[in-house]
Amino acid sequence: MGRKVFFISDGTAITAEVFGHAVLSQFPIDFEQMTIPFVETTTKAKEVKRRINDSFITTGERPLVFHSIVNSEIRDIIYSSEALDYDFLNTFVAPLEHQLGVKADPRIHRTHSIDNDAYADRIDAIHYAMENDDGITLKNLEKADIILVGVSRCGKTPSSLYLSMQFGIKAANYPFIAEDMDNLKLPAELKKYKKKIFGLTIDPKRLHEIRNQRLQGSTYASLRQCRMEVKEVELMFRKERIPYINTTFHSVEEIATKILSQTGIERKMF
Amino acid sequence: MGRKVFFISDGTAITAEVFGHAVLSQFPIDFEQMTIPFVETTTKAKEVKRRINDSFITTGERPLVFHSIVNSEIRDIIYSSEALDYDFLNTFVAPLEHQLGVKADPRIHRTHSIDNDAYADRIDAIHYAMENDDGITLKNLEKADIILVGVSRCGKTPSSLYLSMQFGIKAANYPFIAEDMDNLKLPAELKKYKKKIFGLTIDPKRLHEIRNQRLQGSTYASLRQCRMEVKEVELMFRKERIPYINTTFHSVEEIATKILSQTGIERKMF
Repeated sequence: MGRKVFFISDGTAITAEVFGHAVLSQFPIDFEQMTIPFVETTTKAKEVKRRINDSFITTGERPLVFHSIVNSEIRDIIYSSEALDYDFLNTFVAPLEHQLGVKADPRIHRTHSIDNDAYADRIDAIHYAMENDDGITLKNLEKADIILVGVSRCGKTPSSLYLSMQFGIKAANYPFIAEDMDNLKLPAELKKYKKKIFGLTIDPKRLHEIRNQRLQGSTYASLRQCRMEVKEVELMFRKERIPYINTTFHSVEEIATKILSQTGIERKMF
Repeated sequence: MGRKVFFISDGTAITAEVFGHAVLSQFPIDFEQMTIPFVETTTKAKEVKRRINDSFITTGERPLVFHSIVNSEIRDIIYSSEALDYDFLNTFVAPLEHQLGVKADPRIHRTHSIDNDAYADRIDAIHYAMENDDGITLKNLEKADIILVGVSRCGKTPSSLYLSMQFGIKAANYPFIAEDMDNLKLPAELKKYKKKIFGLTIDPKRLHEIRNQRLQGSTYASLRQCRMEVKEVELMFRKERIPYINTTFHSVEEIATKILSQTGIERKMF
């Protein structure tokens, strides 16, 4: 069993979790991780303190606690536990107060809340991505910030959704399918919005693996078919001068960020 | 114009951006924020250093730089700029090395990469959420980790997608529509999976606003219709003892985290 780690917050604990995970991922050892969100009352904080102390007694090792607790009363209770604590917010807030000459006001803390105008845009973008996935309709392309194109299962859907969820970007996507391949062209409806089009491609072997998990042994999943589709689509990308990236070794975070970085589309923050 | 802020990374910069945003959101002042991902070469690092220094010369104020740069050569170039820098990773890595008695190995840094088994599950979960949105089909409910139910536009779709994207959870969702309201019952196909069902509800006035943005002046969007639907659905939730939360004042992060917290479904981390 690995060293025990708690991610704790009086909010969703997503920041503590994501950031703590980024820090711990640099260590070549195992951790047993547990997230405790919404520690909003002193009663709940005392319960959490008890759990931390129990873990110390049971394992003989002080658990690591990564927290981003805005409320100072709650924070002090966690501080008083047997944990080794790493305070994500205050480690940076204090020096920033000094540099900016402005006091932080925890009450206005607004990470992951709906109290900003951009939130409605973000939800619109998520619905847009859903409703314009996989070429379901080409009627709303005028509203798209970007249109992702590529073969089936090269990463268009997860990338479109990530762009909408994380950055509030309206992303449509359109697949080129087996029937298109004989004389592959960019459809006229897409050609109208050529400046918004961005291509995704993938290594045929990887595509073969992914499709095989879904439809084992099908023509659709065969390496021969995957090779042919990828070749035709890349040829068309080059002919039409459509910018494109290879998704084979990249996560949705990396794909989405690379697309923004290459197109210059602005990230929104929530 | 607000104080200039750069979020910089040799990766996607999403960690630096999200975390920096959480810290800055506590200050009651405006910031002009800019994200620079993929600073992977010394050439690019020197360009970024020049931009930082230019900003100092132009504005007379040292820009704030929040970074999570794993490569030490790149990091040193940014350190040598005129920025006030806040190093998210190393601030915590050094004390952790000391506590754990283990050296961090930046090469194994794996945030937002596909080098872990869970990544394929996450992509599966995203496709699952897409394919089982809005009651499109009820054939795959056996595979669901959770089934969100509620009136149209109460937050089911964004919450399902967030659960899949952030936590790798397979979330289906099912809407109760106007035609269901006369004699509202949980459909038999859903009843089979009752333990997985979780309800969302919303304040009728807020629902009216949201629907009006979409279909202004429609019966669907009328306050009368919204009131009736919410009332019927909440009544059914109570009758069937379906756990539910009110989404009116909550972001998708908060909704998703509350659902996990109430159901005990485990978060996966990527």
